[in-house]
Amino acid sequence: MIKVSVMYPNKPGVRFDHEYYRTKHLPLIKSRMGAALKYYTIDKGLADGKGRSPGAYVAMCHLLCGSVDEYQSSFGPHAPEIDGDIRNFTDVTPIVQISEVVVENSARGDTEALHRIPIDRGSSPHKSDEVIP
Amino acid sequence: MIKVSVMYPNKPGVRFDHEYYRTKHLPLIKSRMGAALKYYTIDKGLADGKGRSPGAYVAMCHLLCGSVDEYQSSFGPHAPEIDGDIRNFTDVTPIVQISEVVVENSARGDTEALHRIPIDRGSSPHKSDEVIP
Repeated sequence: MIKVSVMYPNKPGVRFDHEYYRTKHLPLIKSRMGAALKYYTIDKGLADGKGRSPGAYVAMCHLLCGSVDEYQSSFGPHAPEIDGDIRNFTDVTPIVQISEVVVENSARGDTEALHRIPIDRGSSPHKSDEVIP
Repeated sequence: MIKVSVMYPNKPGVRFDHEYYRTKHLPLIKSRMGAALKYYTIDKGLADGKGRSPGAYVAMCHLLCGSVDEYQSSFGPHAPEIDGDIRNFTDVTPIVQISEVVVENSARGDTEALHRIPIDRGSSPHKSDEVIP
């Protein structure tokens, strides 16, 4: 599984409409990507690690997909429309990063890892001794 | 719920031991934070948004807690030990950001939002019409 992190840098006087982002922009992405988007998360920046406002990013979303190919083939054709919507809620340009999901959720990690074994057998970077007693 | 994102910037020749990070560092954080850490996620940076390697961050983790206070009271006393472990797996200094979790998982958003209502009633930024038919 891969995660596409879209991170909007903070700046003094930054414009960011969190309501639009939650109710319009992410639903737009979901509708265009269809089943290739397993789920997404939305974060609203509060502070840095010491609790001092603001943090490095005013907002982030993370898009979870099965593979980079699935992300690119589902998002790519709609990129002009989705990117064109960004100016409706902010004046900053996001940083985009694609990551491999090493641990999706530590509280239910063993279940996921067991499900993953039949797919990743032979090429997985995950040690089986982490998840199988 | 809040999310503490710990992001390790990429750089040419960056040193980062993903195995140590997954099998030693995050379990150390979990053991020190105890129940205050609901769960964590680990990402390994692959590429930028166009699929070009490397991405902005070589690795990230996200720590999920009930509140900023719970994070600070559980992590703070162990910060010297945890921060002191960073040099064992990398030569870069992470950016830390605290965010409000607006959407934890869009695929099961209604269940979470319904659970949240008794706690957040009257002060929630989430519209009830999003999750309750």
